[in-house]
Amino acid sequence: MTLAVVTLAAGKGSRMKSDLPKVLHKLAGKPMLAHVLHSAAQLPQARLHVVIGHGAEAVKEQITGFPVSWALQAEQKGTGHAVAMAIPEVATDATVLVLYGDVPLIRTDTLQKLLDETHDGHALALLTVELADPTGYGRIVRDDAGNIQAIVEHKDASAEQHKIREVNTGILAVSARLLNEWLPKLSANNAQGEYYLTDIIAMAVDNGVAVRAIHPHDEHEVQGVNDRLQLAALERVYQRGLADELMRAGVSLADPARIDVRGSLKVGSDVVIDVGCVFEGEVVLEDGVHIGPYCVIKNSRIGTGTEVEAYSHLDAAVTADACHIGPYARLRPGADLHTGAKVGNFCEVKKSVIGTGSKVNHLTYIGDASIGRNANIGAGTITCNYDGVNKFKTEIGDEAFIGSNSSLVAPVSIGAGATVAAGSVVTKDVGAAELAVARGKQRNVEGWQRPQKKS
Amino acid sequence: MTLAVVTLAAGKGSRMKSDLPKVLHKLAGKPMLAHVLHSAAQLPQARLHVVIGHGAEAVKEQITGFPVSWALQAEQKGTGHAVAMAIPEVATDATVLVLYGDVPLIRTDTLQKLLDETHDGHALALLTVELADPTGYGRIVRDDAGNIQAIVEHKDASAEQHKIREVNTGILAVSARLLNEWLPKLSANNAQGEYYLTDIIAMAVDNGVAVRAIHPHDEHEVQGVNDRLQLAALERVYQRGLADELMRAGVSLADPARIDVRGSLKVGSDVVIDVGCVFEGEVVLEDGVHIGPYCVIKNSRIGTGTEVEAYSHLDAAVTADACHIGPYARLRPGADLHTGAKVGNFCEVKKSVIGTGSKVNHLTYIGDASIGRNANIGAGTITCNYDGVNKFKTEIGDEAFIGSNSSLVAPVSIGAGATVAAGSVVTKDVGAAELAVARGKQRNVEGWQRPQKKS
Amino acid sequence: MTLAVVTLAAGKGSRMKSDLPKVLHKLAGKPMLAHVLHSAAQLPQARLHVVIGHGAEAVKEQITGFPVSWALQAEQKGTGHAVAMAIPEVATDATVLVLYGDVPLIRTDTLQKLLDETHDGHALALLTVELADPTGYGRIVRDDAGNIQAIVEHKDASAEQHKIREVNTGILAVSARLLNEWLPKLSANNAQGEYYLTDIIAMAVDNGVAVRAIHPHDEHEVQGVNDRLQLAALERVYQRGLADELMRAGVSLADPARIDVRGSLKVGSDVVIDVGCVFEGEVVLEDGVHIGPYCVIKNSRIGTGTEVEAYSHLDAAVTADACHIGPYARLRPGADLHTGAKVGNFCEVKKSVIGTGSKVNHLTYIGDASIGRNANIGAGTITCNYDGVNKFKTEIGDEAFIGSNSSLVAPVSIGAGATVAAGSVVTKDVGAAELAVARGKQRNVEGWQRPQKKS
Repeated sequence: MTLAVVTLAAGKGSRMKSDLPKVLHKLAGKPMLAHVLHSAAQLPQARLHVVIGHGAEAVKEQITGFPVSWALQAEQKGTGHAVAMAIPEVATDATVLVLYGDVPLIRTDTLQKLLDETHDGHALALLTVELADPTGYGRIVRDDAGNIQAIVEHKDASAEQHKIREVNTGILAVSARLLNEWLPKLSANNAQGEYYLTDIIAMAVDNGVAVRAIHPHDEHEVQGVNDRLQLAALERVYQRGLADELMRAGVSLADPARIDVRGSLKVGSDVVIDVGCVFEGEVVLEDGVHIGPYCVIKNSRIGTGTEVEAYSHLDAAVTADACHIGPYARLRPGADLHTGAKVGNFCEVKKSVIGTGSKVNHLTYIGDASIGRNANIGAGTITCNYDGVNKFKTEIGDEAFIGSNSSLVAPVSIGAGATVAAGSVVTKDVGAAELAVARGKQRNVEGWQRPQKKS
Repeated sequence: MTLAVVTLAAGKGSRMKSDLPKVLHKLAGKPMLAHVLHSAAQLPQARLHVVIGHGAEAVKEQITGFPVSWALQAEQKGTGHAVAMAIPEVATDATVLVLYGDVPLIRTDTLQKLLDETHDGHALALLTVELADPTGYGRIVRDDAGNIQAIVEHKDASAEQHKIREVNTGILAVSARLLNEWLPKLSANNAQGEYYLTDIIAMAVDNGVAVRAIHPHDEHEVQGVNDRLQLAALERVYQRGLADELMRAGVSLADPARIDVRGSLKVGSDVVIDVGCVFEGEVVLEDGVHIGPYCVIKNSRIGTGTEVEAYSHLDAAVTADACHIGPYARLRPGADLHTGAKVGNFCEVKKSVIGTGSKVNHLTYIGDASIGRNANIGAGTITCNYDGVNKFKTEIGDEAFIGSNSSLVAPVSIGAGATVAAGSVVTKDVGAAELAVARGKQRNVEGWQRPQKKS
Repeated sequence: MTLAVVTLAAGKGSRMKSDLPKVLHKLAGKPMLAHVLHSAAQLPQARLHVVIGHGAEAVKEQITGFPVSWALQAEQKGTGHAVAMAIPEVATDATVLVLYGDVPLIRTDTLQKLLDETHDGHALALLTVELADPTGYGRIVRDDAGNIQAIVEHKDASAEQHKIREVNTGILAVSARLLNEWLPKLSANNAQGEYYLTDIIAMAVDNGVAVRAIHPHDEHEVQGVNDRLQLAALERVYQRGLADELMRAGVSLADPARIDVRGSLKVGSDVVIDVGCVFEGEVVLEDGVHIGPYCVIKNSRIGTGTEVEAYSHLDAAVTADACHIGPYARLRPGADLHTGAKVGNFCEVKKSVIGTGSKVNHLTYIGDASIGRNANIGAGTITCNYDGVNKFKTEIGDEAFIGSNSSLVAPVSIGAGATVAAGSVVTKDVGAAELAVARGKQRNVEGWQRPQKKS
């Protein structure tokens, strides 16, 4: 039996006060809808259907990486109507699972448990949750045997029913066969004039179809997002969950309330992460890596035993083992540090190799360069890689010593063991072991009159 | 009827352990007393009276921007005595509202509601609050009809009265006429030897003057600050309130517990603020602005669609639309970025225009300069604007290209389309489209002997 | 009577998922075991015994600064067995206090209270705690007179006993005399096959030895750490405690939940610390110091009235009064700022004196230098202190003016009142009041053809 996951994502979300359709708002750096689809896509045999409406084009553009069958709900006429929009593409022998693009934390294992409750299409499976304060939610009414009899909306509930704490989440699974039978029977004869998917529960009970309910692990899985406060609250729940996972995996976090992971963070053993770090995209920290406070690290791989000091900013960088980075180091895309390399404060490295044991420690810009082993790049060195229209390469050999405040005008090559005198502007290649001097001659002037304060 | 707001601000606050008078301690970057006066000043027809004592001169100096009538309470002899100090300046037909300089979060609408309860001076209006734990507070005793009969101090209360959760906040409004009648009757015949304003409640009841109570929105409005722990707690309450307001207005906050706003933050639509940002003074973020983590932004205006990356520090800067700032960019007062300008890592800009589309991307100091359109300022460039006593201007024309590590010795002008070779020290003007070279000639020395390690 | 403190520290802590023995995991920058020993060492007459096993060598290496008598427990056969390993070194007339290396927040005053309860060796004193949820813990069973009768393990407890909320912490004090009598009688005849120290309570009751219990100040004192989540939770408790202490001492904290102190932070009056600061080692902030957001300060002393702006990073630095540091200033070991000195953005200072009133404000590297009074170091200045193998000193006299982008090639001396022209590379000493110029001559080339885009 195939599985059709129908995710409703057509709403505008006016309380978000945004030009962006609600389901594109990000949680942990990824649109809410992408979270839902990610969870759904891990279900065996799942085909993904997404019902879009408001901002349909934007949603289609930004949600990539999933094989989605898009259905357009041109007018928002209720959840039942929305599901109906997807039905033409759903196989008639499928099981249909209905999800919501603004309920981002639903888990795959919860959905699998829910699907198991359909018993191959014989039952309607409903995800319900017990709330401390169920005010406003549709209550799950059961008979004495515990069988679900109805969902009663809050406003229609009796005093006795108001005490029921089990409520409907809207997430359900049912055979396409039954759905095809019931959807056409939905009525918009209600205050909102909408077709409610929930009404199929009553049809199931009427038709003698069993309604079975399971609960999620916790209520955050079924919390919907209607405004940015709710989104921020779920962001914190999600981040705390990731932090706990990292700690259980053996990472030391200085403060689990002050780490943000927006993507995937893979860690080796005995990794230490200080307060306030932000990780984005795919980041790998190998064994014994130490990340200082307030680092921002995106799409990078940090080698074993490397130390990254405070306020370092890495993007698409790679380091081998035992490197030392920061504080205040910026590694931009293509920075490639070999074993034991050092990049220190107020240094920027872009699309460059820093060879084994080489040091770029102070106030330096290295771009489009290749630096050999054990080279020393003095403070304030600049690789002048850009002439206004073209970029050029700088080659620096093993053991080279670049004096402070030098400018290396690319394309240029500094040979192995060469020395560049401090403050030089190097425009021609320097051979191996040569000394290059390219600076003015010093003259001292006696009797120099200091400038005077001008009025 | 005029309104006289009498704010008591004479206390020392010894538990603050500070040389600063208590009411000058800051909440959200502003003295507590200024918060109170700000709320009071928005009441129609309000005249502000402040009773000062400890650190009176400091308070008068630092609380500016409000038209305040200062009254000195030379000795601290209780709240009743304090109010009496202000009375000579209060119009006899006014309504008097009594506030406290160390109760900073009181809201204008709460005060307006309270004033409404005075019924044009016929009633005494009292702000009371229900506390989960009222221990230590004066309880509000009401008769069966709900009329307030007395305030009973905790130590004087019966077991039955101890159960009362409604307590006195000290904030009240009453006509000057009644106050002038009652204040002289206050007695200091109590353990502290002080004149308590609260005793007028009993006088009102005795005199058949109705005592009417209203509640604030929440109890933080009436919490007083006696030490720095309480101040820090209220700071967090205040900041969380601002964060919620921002989110309701359509701002995405990565973490509402990690943003600090000390002043006014005005936002356009779809603004995104990452973790840990601090805003001070008057800050405006236009539509679609994205602020990266750990930025500090003071008194600045950021144009539509501008991106400010991590660790950027802006003070009295202005950017037009679509600029790109940081990471690690510092914009100091007078930095003025035109459309699409870029200021990158480890760059400092002071009192300078960066023209449309121009780039200042790496390790650069731009001070007292004016840069035209589409200019490129190479890495490590320094405008040498200071001769030790005077500051001079640097002019850089449209499309100019300043090579890396150049020094531009002001006053100096670089013409439109001119080029400065890398590492040049430019002391004379460069004409339009000219190339300026001002650096030493390179010579390479073979057989150079590297320095040896000295013992 | 002498005191033998026996701390159990032999466990592996497999749930830490670490190569490091559990007791070496750090809380507030210090191994958990060091916290326990620090508290114990303050008890009068205390001799410290530590029982080690897993990672014994690592523990001995890293726990220094305490005079410890180490005992090896080669096999982990229970707490009773562990204590027995230390006994040979314990004086027979001593009182023995048993602590745990993974219960880091125990306080000295709690331990002293516990010791007082032994009544010179006549009673067994037990630290117990009331828990809201005692599930899993050994309950303290008392008779009607309140005398402790037994400790009943959770699994052995009756329904009535399950309601007891007072539980055993494992921390106890008893005379060596009694311990020597009881330890040999412990049996490993239980599910785990271990010798439990707790079984001596029953022996005490059997022998008519009084068992007296006291409670800690709060339950965090007796919480053990089994995984990194628990460690992170205690870290937060500890940090919050320090924050509260600082505030009570008169420090203003912008957010007590966002400060980390790993070591000792001594403060003068009216110190202000903004959000997100991290302090390590021994730090002293004198009166009126203001620390901006996100500073990292280690082993440094900051003089009265000094302002440290955002993102400054100080390590083993000293400043006199009224200095101004940052934002983005890095002071490395040996940085020594005299009164009123300024170090500004993107500046690094190492092993150097910055004299009274001198300014190092922008993009500068000062290493191994001595700067006199009122000198001005221009933007982008580099002291070239390293020739690849040796470090040399730079001397800069009072009132010297170093032009921007200069390189000072050490060893070199710049005299008092001397001027270095912008962009100079100074290799020879400059006399007092002299002007040194060491740069290329500018030539402007007309008709310069800009580089073309290469395909």
